[in-house]
Parts: sequence; structure tokens; C-alpha cells
Amino acid sequence: MTGLQIRPVHGIGDVTAGDDLVQLIAAAAPWLADGDVLVVTSKIVSKAEGNLVEVPADGPERDAARAAALVAETARVVARRGPTTIVQTHHGFVMAAAGIDASNVDKTHLVLLPADPDASARRLRAGFRARGLDVAVIVSDTMGRAWRNGLTDVALGAAGIPPFRDHRGETDPYGNELQITQMAVIDELSAAGELVKGKVDNVPVAVVRGYLKAGPGAPADGPGAAPLLRDAESDMFSLGTSEARAAGLRDAAQLPDALQSDRPVDPEAVRRALDTVAAHLSRTTTVTPAEASATNAAALHLQTRDTTPAGLIRLGADAHRLRAALAAESVASIALPHDDGIRLELSGATA
Amino acid sequence: MTGLQIRPVHGIGDVTAGDDLVQLIAAAAPWLADGDVLVVTSKIVSKAEGNLVEVPADGPERDAARAAALVAETARVVARRGPTTIVQTHHGFVMAAAGIDASNVDKTHLVLLPADPDASARRLRAGFRARGLDVAVIVSDTMGRAWRNGLTDVALGAAGIPPFRDHRGETDPYGNELQITQMAVIDELSAAGELVKGKVDNVPVAVVRGYLKAGPGAPADGPGAAPLLRDAESDMFSLGTSEARAAGLRDAAQLPDALQSDRPVDPEAVRRALDTVAAHLSRTTTVTPAEASATNAAALHLQTRDTTPAGLIRLGADAHRLRAALAAESVASIALPHDDGIRLELSGATA
Repeated sequence: MTGLQIRPVHGIGDVTAGDDLVQLIAAAAPWLADGDVLVVTSKIVSKAEGNLVEVPADGPERDAARAAALVAETARVVARRGPTTIVQTHHGFVMAAAGIDASNVDKTHLVLLPADPDASARRLRAGFRARGLDVAVIVSDTMGRAWRNGLTDVALGAAGIPPFRDHRGETDPYGNELQITQMAVIDELSAAGELVKGKVDNVPVAVVRGYLKAGPGAPADGPGAAPLLRDAESDMFSLGTSEARAAGLRDAAQLPDALQSDRPVDPEAVRRALDTVAAHLSRTTTVTPAEASATNAAALHLQTRDTTPAGLIRLGADAHRLRAALAAESVASIALPHDDGIRLELSGATA
Repeated sequence: MTGLQIRPVHGIGDVTAGDDLVQLIAAAAPWLADGDVLVVTSKIVSKAEGNLVEVPADGPERDAARAAALVAETARVVARRGPTTIVQTHHGFVMAAAGIDASNVDKTHLVLLPADPDASARRLRAGFRARGLDVAVIVSDTMGRAWRNGLTDVALGAAGIPPFRDHRGETDPYGNELQITQMAVIDELSAAGELVKGKVDNVPVAVVRGYLKAGPGAPADGPGAAPLLRDAESDMFSLGTSEARAAGLRDAAQLPDALQSDRPVDPEAVRRALDTVAAHLSRTTTVTPAEASATNAAALHLQTRDTTPAGLIRLGADAHRLRAALAAESVASIALPHDDGIRLELSGATA
């Protein structure tokens, strides 16, 4: 491999709804060649496709219109802190403010993400092919990330280029099989393209040459950038920390009075839960192991030395503290209050 | 700007402890020039610096040694799911398995991250400068991210190049001031470099030409890659979702019996909390607004129609459910059980 060249495309100028992006790019970059990868900033794709919303230029009406646009683009809220709202968009992207952007557009419009960035990439690619040019197209945007400061550009859409370079199953020179190395190359190409773009000086397209080999017969459009999206279910960071913590508190408020399974209970988990609450129980409350029932491997018994109404109420609150601590350790419980105290039957959680 | 060239450095071969990386790279890339940015895979830096641990080649002893290495490199666990453990390392990086790698090394060693990647980058840069070459150095590694499948390369260390390109305060052609656009360029350069590297074919260095302008007088080493690290405190995703949810359950188990502030209480938040628990309270429990005290703006009163011990215990549990639901809405509470029921005094939370 002799390496890559990354070139900015200057002179595209302002893009407005209905513009033919293929013609604008081809005119500005007459040196385009088969095998080039075009990294196109999503904003000019949205503008050409007319994916903007009109908003007042200033004042509270502008803020309200902007908030309404955010709601419209949001599938679910991931995290909020101060003025920052991170959402998952209807496309599945996790982005601050749903990727809605007020920069590089006049003050009476906001630019939304393209409605279907993979489709946009395919259309652009087809447009170049109609001109006899076999290029790949990536539609990119700027995103923040967890854990690291600063933003990088990533791919929202793609056509004519595989999203991943997959090393799984390859063997290194020492005979070790590579296991999880699936590189998100269209994100890396987007990042590389960003290095030659400007944020304020109208360089919305970069061209990467040398990554794809030009050859006879155009490759398929491929799966686009959609495979880069991780669904909330399989994402270990589907919610912000404080949102997830609040969800845990709501879980505690809604602990079901039904055992979820007959799975065995890890005694260590029970011990950790008891440690969690130890300093928070009333001094009149005692917790002792109870005889397990036929269907449940473990049970605890809570009693109070203070049998006044206030003492019994405290006992009930203590029992719920303990149930929350057990739930934090993935131990489910049911509470069976009776005249001598309260019995908690335990099971391993289903999750 | 005429763009960038990104070239792989072939022929470096196997690197072992004590090797002079500067000499190896300079010999393999005699075409290096002032202003080049070298993107050096952290693994060869670790190997040259001898930052490896010896482990058995297989069996449970290997697994145990690997687990011990992970504990030693871990400052805190961020998230676990199945075999995956994401931790924050002592450096501050959030990475699966603390970046410990068993690939491209013989089976009796694991490669740790460099002990101080910024210092490694500075040493390498100084080594090139001693040869009359003024280059910037980035030490890179492969990382996963939240929300997106696939891995990308990012910067662990840097010298001679600013970590960010900062657009804040710039004005776009429409007169809009850019507000948050601080690009993590050393991460983007790492990603660009990865595109020409191989995972299994010994291309551990890429050279980016055209990004920095060569000029008289070497620039300072600069702040390195450390500014890219976001501390857990300011990170909205400092914990995995299920870990944070478990923390919320533990919060519920440990709700303090002390008001945190005399802040006013949002009546909407109280209404949401009551909605949260509505379906989970005993049918004998009632919740009514109580007269507020001099120091607290809001209070609730819980009573039960069932004044048997079991009924009072249920009332206590219900009160704690409600306290957890209130805490989820950032409303703090103290519980004051008495013979006629239980009074919850409320305040806005301090956080």
C-alpha cells in the first residue's frame, strides 16, 4: 500500500434546497477519479434536500421552535445535563440536540439531519455513476462521544464502501486469532476527511484517494452506515448515568411483589445487600436468616423490638430498604408481612 | 490547503524490550520530513518500553493471570456485561479490558498500555529531534465506543501537536458564532493513520504529511493527549446503564433520614412520584398532602385503614417506596413515623 491522499474540495459555495450536489461537487473537483471516497458533510446534503425547519431569528419564539424541532427529531432521550440534551434520533444516532444545527445557515432556519443518510449517499453515488464516475460516498457529521473531550466526524450514511474492515478470524504472526477487531472504517474515513475540511470556510467535501482500489465493474452500494448503529438493547450505555440512577430509584419504588424465578440465590449477594443497608436500619430492627420454603432457596426474617405503630412502620420501611439493596444485587424478593414481623422470600433474578 | 498524505511505514518488524523505536522507524522511513505527524501504535511503544506482563500460555492459570493484570490496571470498573469489562485505567482511559492485549505478542506475554503515553510521545519526538527531524508524535490505540458498533483508533499520547482544533468564537459566513466545536484532531489523525495500518501485518506506524506546517523552530511538545480525558465527574456516561441502575437501587436502600436543603419542591415532581408508586401501594394505604412546617415547603401524610401489625408494616414499606420515587425526581424526604401514620417532609435536592 502506498498510502492515502486526502484532498479538500474548495469552491462549492452556498448550497440551497434543490441544488444538484453531484454537479456542484463534480464542477469543483474535476480531478475526481474512479475509486475515490467522497466524504460529504451532512449539512450540505440536508440543505440540498431541503431538510430544514423555519424558525424565528431570535427571542423566546426561536427557543421554543428549536425545542419543538428537537422533540420532533427525538426517538428517546438518552441524557440531560444543564443545557445539553443527548437523544437517540429516529434514525438511531445518539447525538447532542439530535444533530440539529444552527451554524452555516441563515438565522431563520435550522438544519436537520438528512431524513435517510444511507439513501442520500446512494443517490449521490448514482449521480456520479451517471456521469461515468465510480466513487464511494460517505455522508458525515460531527459528534461528541462518551469519556473523551472534543468532537470527531463519523459516518451517518454510506454507499459503495463496506462500513467495517473485519479482522475477526485472522491470525497474527504469533498465531493468536484476532477476536473482536472490527474496525469502523467509514467513521475513520469521516474523521480523516474532517482534517482537511473547515467549519466556517466552506469546505464541505473531502476526497480520500487510495483507500478503495478502482477496478472494472462498480461494487454494490452495500449496507451503508446503518450497521454502525448499536440498538439501545445491546448498548451498555443506553442511558446517561444520572438517568439510569433515577431509573434505579423508580425500580425501587416499583419493586414487584412477585418472585421472578426459582433461581438459586448467591449468599454473597445477600451478604453484600445486608452490608449496604446495615447502617440505615432502625436500631430496633433485626434481620435473621429464615427457614427456606419448598419453592425458595433463601428467605430472611425481619423483626422489631419496638412494637408500637411507629416501630412497626419503621420495620416496614427497613424491609423495603433491604429489598432495594437485594435488587441492586440482582436478588428478587417478595415481602410477606405478618403479626410477628416480615418475611422476605428470595430468588435469583431472571435478568 | 492541498490536502494530506498518509503513508504506512513498512518493515519495522518485531519490536522487543529495549529496542530503539526512533532508530527502527527512521530506518524504515528514510523519507520522513519536518512537519510529519507520526502515528505510532501503542503496542510497539509498550513492547519497546518493556511494559508487558508474563502469563502462562494457556489453561485456567492464564485466565487468572489475565484477570489479575486487569485488576492491576483498573482505577474503577465502568461497566460489565458477559465477558466484557469496561474500566477506567489509572491513566484515565475508558477501555475494554484496560487496553490489555494478547494479540501481536507471543503467548506467554500480555501487552499493557504504555505507563505514560504522553511521556512516551515526548521521548520519541525528542529522539527524532536529536536526529535533526522535527516531527509530531501520536501514540494511538484501538478503542470501542458507546452507541456505535466497530472500533476506531484514538490518541493515548501526543507531543508536538495540539490535541484540539478549536472553533469556538469563530463566526460562520451567516454571522453565527460557533459554540461547541472543539475538534479532537489527534483522535482524527489516529483514525486516519489506522486506515493504512494492518492489524496482523506489522505496519505499526503511519505518517501524516501536510497537516502541520514545517517551519523554523520546533513547536513545544504541548499538553499531549491528556486534555482528551474526561473525568468521571463531568462525564454523563461515567457508569454503564445497568451499573448506574443498581447504584440507584442502592441509593434507595440508603436514603438518608435528613433533609438535604430547604429548597422549594416542584409540585409536578411530587405528582410524578405519586404516579410512579400509585399502582404499587397497598390498597389500605392513603397519601394526602400534609400541612407544611415552618422549615419545609411541602409534606405528605401516609395512613392506613389496616392498623394490624401487618398493615402498619405495609404502610412503612409504602412510605419507603414513595421516598424512592420522590428521590428519582430529585425530591429529598425525611420520614417521621408516628402512631397515626407517617409524615414525609420534603425538600428540593441539593444536586
